[in-house]
Amino acid sequence: MPSPALIASSTSSPWEPAGKRAQQRELKRNAVLQAAAQLFNERGFHATSLDDIAERLNVSKPTVYYYVESKDQILLECVKIALDLMQAGIDEVRAAGGSAIDQLEACMRIYSSVVTQDFGMCVIRIGEDPLPDPLKKELRRLKAGIDGQFRRLIAEGVAEGSLAPCDPKMAAFMLAGALSWIGRWYRPDGDLTPTQIADQGIQLLLNGVLHRPAPTARRKSVARKPG
Amino acid sequence: MPSPALIASSTSSPWEPAGKRAQQRELKRNAVLQAAAQLFNERGFHATSLDDIAERLNVSKPTVYYYVESKDQILLECVKIALDLMQAGIDEVRAAGGSAIDQLEACMRIYSSVVTQDFGMCVIRIGEDPLPDPLKKELRRLKAGIDGQFRRLIAEGVAEGSLAPCDPKMAAFMLAGALSWIGRWYRPDGDLTPTQIADQGIQLLLNGVLHRPAPTARRKSVARKPG
Repeated sequence: MPSPALIASSTSSPWEPAGKRAQQRELKRNAVLQAAAQLFNERGFHATSLDDIAERLNVSKPTVYYYVESKDQILLECVKIALDLMQAGIDEVRAAGGSAIDQLEACMRIYSSVVTQDFGMCVIRIGEDPLPDPLKKELRRLKAGIDGQFRRLIAEGVAEGSLAPCDPKMAAFMLAGALSWIGRWYRPDGDLTPTQIADQGIQLLLNGVLHRPAPTARRKSVARKPG
Repeated sequence: MPSPALIASSTSSPWEPAGKRAQQRELKRNAVLQAAAQLFNERGFHATSLDDIAERLNVSKPTVYYYVESKDQILLECVKIALDLMQAGIDEVRAAGGSAIDQLEACMRIYSSVVTQDFGMCVIRIGEDPLPDPLKKELRRLKAGIDGQFRRLIAEGVAEGSLAPCDPKMAAFMLAGALSWIGRWYRPDGDLTPTQIADQGIQLLLNGVLHRPAPTARRKSVARKPG
């Protein structure tokens, strides 16, 4: 006698349940976006066609069109996914609380991590330039939200005394610039892993490039009397 | 009797001398490139047409075509002018010599200054993405030259003891990233002048964002005995 599990299986419809179908569709749609992001990052947005995307996935162009409307829409979604990911990470850090400097460092890590991923690289390498104005505006709004969080964290860091007095707007731009640039030069087959890049990059931004004989402010120094 | 100057003027050809004509052509060609760069930076490369460029200059599209071949060629030249300007500035600093840290700071100032100008902004806001592969390669070669100079200067700074030990490649990327980003967010009608931005930005990169009670390494500290 067949086991109950087999009976259940044999009497079920040859079509997947609606929930699973939606999940499958989402999975495939995501694969289309990811393949597109990789191609945009490798070849540039203009040099990439929907045919290229279909070819990379071993499917036909109509199959790609089943999941996405246009190259513009793909780019919009790739960039949105990355910015949403960044914002969600920052929100989580903010909710967990702690000192401003620790939160800032955690947010810098999130930023650095996202720009070394396919979708995040798209934000930096392609950006919103190819998109029509209303879509550009939407992406700029998301970016402004992230920038605002960095400014607030920097202002809080100055207030708590962990950061040197500065113009938070200016400092946020410099940090975001250096971290964003990682998405331009990072190569998955390069010498450094994303974590090593984040470690070294964040250290450089926090401490600066100048040599200082004294230990950094983040490390406790052991005072010694001369002699 | 007319003065010799007037006689000379009245007997000269109504056509400008060849040298002056070439100079005039160069001047007008440059005006076309500059107007194009401004429009690319304001609206994006794709949203800008040759008609828009002609309109901005109050001339016809055929007039624009007399000076340039295509939008691609305009972008290539805009980016090349900026990169050549940067390279020439760096060469001058290198030729003048001095400590590595002073040379690095001077080169950072040049970089920051170029990316707040129309052509330099184009390098950062538009980049080479819209261009065909051979042109992309040419621009990347120019960029790699500038990057190489920054790496060498940083390595020299570490060797002379003015910079903290670091991976010069990584540090050059972080500095160039933060400075490049200025070209993205700088607004000619904003709060800060390009000089103020360079001052504050370079200070942040040299000293880092962390608060340090001790004076910076670039300023001579007066040692005091306790008590």
